[in-house]
Amino acid sequence: MYGVPHGADLPALTPVLPVFLSYLLSFVYVGIYWNNHHHMFQVVTLVNGAVLWANLHLLFWLSLLPFVTHWTGETGFAAVPVAAYGGVLLLAGVAYWLLVRALIAREGKDSVLASAIGSDFKGNISIVAYLVAIPLAFVDRRIASAFYVAVAILWLVPDRRIERALAERRE
Amino acid sequence: MYGVPHGADLPALTPVLPVFLSYLLSFVYVGIYWNNHHHMFQVVTLVNGAVLWANLHLLFWLSLLPFVTHWTGETGFAAVPVAAYGGVLLLAGVAYWLLVRALIAREGKDSVLASAIGSDFKGNISIVAYLVAIPLAFVDRRIASAFYVAVAILWLVPDRRIERALAERRE
Amino acid sequence: MYGVPHGADLPALTPVLPVFLSYLLSFVYVGIYWNNHHHMFQVVTLVNGAVLWANLHLLFWLSLLPFVTHWTGETGFAAVPVAAYGGVLLLAGVAYWLLVRALIAREGKDSVLASAIGSDFKGNISIVAYLVAIPLAFVDRRIASAFYVAVAILWLVPDRRIERALAERRE
Amino acid sequence: MYGVPHGADLPALTPVLPVFLSYLLSFVYVGIYWNNHHHMFQVVTLVNGAVLWANLHLLFWLSLLPFVTHWTGETGFAAVPVAAYGGVLLLAGVAYWLLVRALIAREGKDSVLASAIGSDFKGNISIVAYLVAIPLAFVDRRIASAFYVAVAILWLVPDRRIERALAERRE
Repeated sequence: MYGVPHGADLPALTPVLPVFLSYLLSFVYVGIYWNNHHHMFQVVTLVNGAVLWANLHLLFWLSLLPFVTHWTGETGFAAVPVAAYGGVLLLAGVAYWLLVRALIAREGKDSVLASAIGSDFKGNISIVAYLVAIPLAFVDRRIASAFYVAVAILWLVPDRRIERALAERRE
Repeated sequence: MYGVPHGADLPALTPVLPVFLSYLLSFVYVGIYWNNHHHMFQVVTLVNGAVLWANLHLLFWLSLLPFVTHWTGETGFAAVPVAAYGGVLLLAGVAYWLLVRALIAREGKDSVLASAIGSDFKGNISIVAYLVAIPLAFVDRRIASAFYVAVAILWLVPDRRIERALAERRE
Repeated sequence: MYGVPHGADLPALTPVLPVFLSYLLSFVYVGIYWNNHHHMFQVVTLVNGAVLWANLHLLFWLSLLPFVTHWTGETGFAAVPVAAYGGVLLLAGVAYWLLVRALIAREGKDSVLASAIGSDFKGNISIVAYLVAIPLAFVDRRIASAFYVAVAILWLVPDRRIERALAERRE
Repeated sequence: MYGVPHGADLPALTPVLPVFLSYLLSFVYVGIYWNNHHHMFQVVTLVNGAVLWANLHLLFWLSLLPFVTHWTGETGFAAVPVAAYGGVLLLAGVAYWLLVRALIAREGKDSVLASAIGSDFKGNISIVAYLVAIPLAFVDRRIASAFYVAVAILWLVPDRRIERALAERRE
């Protein structure tokens, strides 16, 4: 099986460490998308063709994440794989941004969703962060990786606004 | 992991390019089937044994898509893999055609589904296009591949008729 | 990717043929279980712990099917893999038999489910067929394989009794 | 395919036996988590952000189970892989413990869930058992493995308390 150490002792685990770290980061990113996606669709009332395709477009870039995750881990976070990893994060971030726009276009500017998303500060700042981080991978791989971790931390707090909007609607 | 480049620099990505292109085309095809399937089943009222088997028959051919996708990509779009790719698309197209027929037989000729499907121009033209493209793969692989892309573009527009039929029913 | 031919011409597909045939048979078997499971649970009113575990027990044996499928295909239907394939089918069949018993114990002897299952002729005859076929694999692999195909054909007709029982209940 | 024997006779299955045993144990563990998770969420009324993340945290450790399962099986239950297997079980156990706490915090101390979980004897004793078993793997791999099997048996009985609490609520 992929990633299984070739040996039965503890040192056999050493080359697995960067693979584990890139796997952990990707798991957290997929978890963030999963949770925010779940939250967002709770206030969506009807899905149309544009939303279905915006959703599949997001899924396409997320489906490339295992590829760049493994490449990054296997090369011990080399510059090109780290930049490619950021590229996939960037394209997934843009896809999510487009999905939010398609949903607001469907729901209307006065919808619960539109007021919950607001100015979409997190969505915009993430895209800027990826754009800064990708070229920095060729200066120092650790700086780029630190950017990816920082964006993940920014998103780890679930969007209270949607929970609040939902709670208000229930009252 | 399958498809991960053997190296940490940009040239290591070059042999991955045809794999990426065939993956992209297959992702779009699966997305088209997913979306149209989703749309169609929105107006289906009851599923019987024939529909379940027609559905699994479609799933069988789609489950072979990763196989021919990778073969096509790995050989850099060689003639035989490109023809085999078209063969799987053809059989999936025929399976979808049969599924639509099984559903209309179940729902009745005056159903929302039957009127939304109409003459099934797209379904019929796709099957003809695959039948033309497959032998052309042995003349020029690019012509056959262009046919597959053209059919995908034809389907990319989701079936407005079902959305309209649904909207009318809601009123 | 597993099973992808090592070459770009038609003869490269020849060693893939037995893999395709064993894949096709396993796909049909999983489809049969899927459809009958779906039909059966339509008339189930409440799930308890025993049913959950009987379900997971069935899933365990079905999860070994890809293993014996590939072993059978890769060895070109050799005697031991063909017998092992039958062994997995037998254990899945016994697991399904137990699941049906757990469900009837939960639903009661006068339930829609119990009357739809009746004497469970198909379930019993399948287990007998596997028990006969497995030793025959060491006499002639084709006889054993023919038994597996015959049992699949027996099951391909979905259980009309459940559809009828459901239709009556709706009236 | 991974784990498929290299040969067509019965001795070819011998090196597969420890892989099968570790796969069986992991399947049972995943089944236990699946069933208890299913039972527990039947009495959960609303999911919030903390619960979603506690859930993903559990999923993270369970997603590492195939990795340590295969390592354990392939090395014939060597000391380090057996200890690592216990480590993943321990972290999944802690994650489940945290998930239960997040759910009770959400549902309230007087909820059906809180009364059904009670003192959580099984959850606590499992964590203690893993903590004892992991160092014992370096004394005798079989003792540690026996601990893992014993904890699995302890959990195999589904939580009657939740079934009872649900039945009472229905009356």
